[in-house]
Amino acid sequence: MDNMYIGVDLGGTHLRAAIVNTETGKLTGLKQIPTLAREGHDAVIARMAILIEDVIHEQQIDKTDIGGIGIGVPGVLDLERGIVLFLPNLAGTWPNVPLKKIIEEKVGIPTSLLNDARSMTFGEWKFGAGQGVDTIACFAIGTGIGGGLVINGKLHLGIGGTGGELGHQIIDFNGPPCGCGSHGCLEAFASGPAIAAMGVKAVLQGLTTSIGEIVDYDLNKITPKIIYQAAMEGDEIAHNIFEKAGFYIGIAVANIMVTIGPRKVVIGGGVAQAGDLLLEPIRRTAYERVFVMPREQVEIVPAALGPYAGLVGAALWAREQQSISTDGATN
Amino acid sequence: MDNMYIGVDLGGTHLRAAIVNTETGKLTGLKQIPTLAREGHDAVIARMAILIEDVIHEQQIDKTDIGGIGIGVPGVLDLERGIVLFLPNLAGTWPNVPLKKIIEEKVGIPTSLLNDARSMTFGEWKFGAGQGVDTIACFAIGTGIGGGLVINGKLHLGIGGTGGELGHQIIDFNGPPCGCGSHGCLEAFASGPAIAAMGVKAVLQGLTTSIGEIVDYDLNKITPKIIYQAAMEGDEIAHNIFEKAGFYIGIAVANIMVTIGPRKVVIGGGVAQAGDLLLEPIRRTAYERVFVMPREQVEIVPAALGPYAGLVGAALWAREQQSISTDGATN
Repeated sequence: MDNMYIGVDLGGTHLRAAIVNTETGKLTGLKQIPTLAREGHDAVIARMAILIEDVIHEQQIDKTDIGGIGIGVPGVLDLERGIVLFLPNLAGTWPNVPLKKIIEEKVGIPTSLLNDARSMTFGEWKFGAGQGVDTIACFAIGTGIGGGLVINGKLHLGIGGTGGELGHQIIDFNGPPCGCGSHGCLEAFASGPAIAAMGVKAVLQGLTTSIGEIVDYDLNKITPKIIYQAAMEGDEIAHNIFEKAGFYIGIAVANIMVTIGPRKVVIGGGVAQAGDLLLEPIRRTAYERVFVMPREQVEIVPAALGPYAGLVGAALWAREQQSISTDGATN
Repeated sequence: MDNMYIGVDLGGTHLRAAIVNTETGKLTGLKQIPTLAREGHDAVIARMAILIEDVIHEQQIDKTDIGGIGIGVPGVLDLERGIVLFLPNLAGTWPNVPLKKIIEEKVGIPTSLLNDARSMTFGEWKFGAGQGVDTIACFAIGTGIGGGLVINGKLHLGIGGTGGELGHQIIDFNGPPCGCGSHGCLEAFASGPAIAAMGVKAVLQGLTTSIGEIVDYDLNKITPKIIYQAAMEGDEIAHNIFEKAGFYIGIAVANIMVTIGPRKVVIGGGVAQAGDLLLEPIRRTAYERVFVMPREQVEIVPAALGPYAGLVGAALWAREQQSISTDGATN
C-alpha cells in the first residue's frame, strides 16, 4: 500500500485525478470533470478537492493509506511555498494562490505541486518513452509549449522549479511575439494556436487546400487536428504546415542536444498526436543542424503515456517530496 | 601532498602547464611555451610531455606525489576512451589521437582529458565567479564560443562529455554559416572572428570610425581588441559592435536561463576582457527576453580566474577522475 499516491492534472478543459501505483505506474479509479476555469480559482480548487475525495471514496481506500497528492499545474509555480504564480493558458487569474495548502486543508493529505510539463517529463522518464536512460529532454507541444529535463536520473528543477521551459528558447531573435512577453520563442512558432494560424493564413491566401472546406469556411474551427486530417487526405499545404512546425521544433531540439547531450528527446502533448507528420521533420532538422556532439546517439521519440503522463509524473513527484520530508531533509 | 595535480591547457597559440593545489586552487610552477600547432599532433604532444616534465622537475616534486594530469583540450573528445576526435580551431588535423594514453606512456602519470570550456567552467565554479551556488552556466567567448554547465554541484557531461556546447545554440534559424557546419549558431554571430568581421565591414562601408586608422588600414589586423580600443576612445561604431555582440550572447543566455534555471551565468574567454562594454548589453538583453522564470534571481557575472581557469578546472577534473578509479567505480 506504500506506493499509492493521487495524481491530479489541472488542465485547461479537464480536471483529472487517479490513484497511481508509483512502483508500477498503474492507474486506478481515473475520473475526469470539466475544469470550468472561468468560474475562478476558488471554484476550480473546490471542484478539484471533491474530485479527489470521489476517487478515494469510489476505490474504498483509507486516506491514511495514501502517501500524498501530486498536482500537475500548467503554469509558473513557487515550488518551495506551494504557490501558483502564473497560469497563462487558463481563464481567470491565479495570483499567488496557495494551492498546496488549500488542498491539504480540504482533503487532509500532504500535497505537492509540479509544473504539468515537468510532471509529464517525469512520468515519461519513469514509465514511458524516456525509460532506461539517465538524461532526457521532453517537449510538450499543445496550447503552449512546455518541457522538462531529467539529468543524471533526477528531474531538473532549476531556480524555484522553473528550469525546463524548452518552449521559450528563442530560435529567431527577430521572430514574432510570444505569449510570454518575449518574441521569437519556439512557442510563438509551433504551438497549437501557431499551427492553426498557419492553416487560417493558407485559406485566406487562397492556396489550394482542403483545410477551409473541412471547417465549412468557419476559420475559428481550424485546429492542428483539422490540418492533420487534411494532410492525411493528401493535402500538400496541410502537409507543409506540419513540415514547418516540425522544422521549428527541430531547431529547438538541436539546441537541447548541444547544450545537454541527452540520450533521448521525447516529443509529447496534444499536437504530437500528429505522429510522423511532425516527428519526421523534427528528426530531420535536428540531425541536420547538430555537429558538435554524436547526434546519432540521441533518440528522438514520441511520448508513450498519452494524456496521463502528467498525472503519473505528479504522483511520482509527490512520492519523492514526501520521502524527503519523512527523511527530515530539506529541499 | 594529496591535492597536487598537474593542469595543462592546450591552446591554439600556447601550451601551458602548472601544478594545481586542488584544495585551494593555487598554482605553482606555471610554464608556457608556443603550441606550434602546424608541426602536427605528434610534435605538439611531444612538446607537451616535455613541458609537464619540466614543471615537475623545476618544482623538485616526486612524480608519485602527483595525483594525476588533467588536460583541457579545445575540441570534441571521447572522454571514456581519452581520444581527441575533432579540434576545429587548431591547425593540423587530430584524427582520433589517443592523447590520454600517449601522455600516460610518456610521463607515467594517470591522465584525464576534458574540453577546455568545460575545464574553465569547472574551475570558475570551484574557485572563481561561479562559487557558492549549485548550478551555473559558463560561456567562453574567444576564437570559438564554448561553454559548460555545472548542475546540482556536478560538472554536466552529457553523451561522451559533449554537453555544454552553449555556443552552438541556434539563435536565428536563418542565420549565417557556422564553423561547425550548421548555421545561425551563437558562435557565427559573436565569436572573436565574427566581431572582427563587423569591424572590417564598418571600415569597408566607409562608416565614421577610427577602427581603420588604428590598424593603418591593414584590415587583417582588426581584432576584437582593436575594436575595444576604438570604443574606449569614444568611437560610436566600435561601441555598437560590442552592443550587437552582447545582444546575440544575451539571447543565448536567455535561452539557458529558461532551460536550466541557473543561479549564475559566467561570461569568460578572451573577448570577455571587453568587460562592461560586452556584459552590459548581455545583461540587458537576457533580462529583457526572459519571462517564464524569476530572472532577477540569476546573476550574470564576468569570469574571475582569467586565462588559468581552464588549467585549474582540468586539474580538478583529473582529481575527480582519479578518485573515481581509486574507488573502483565506473564512469
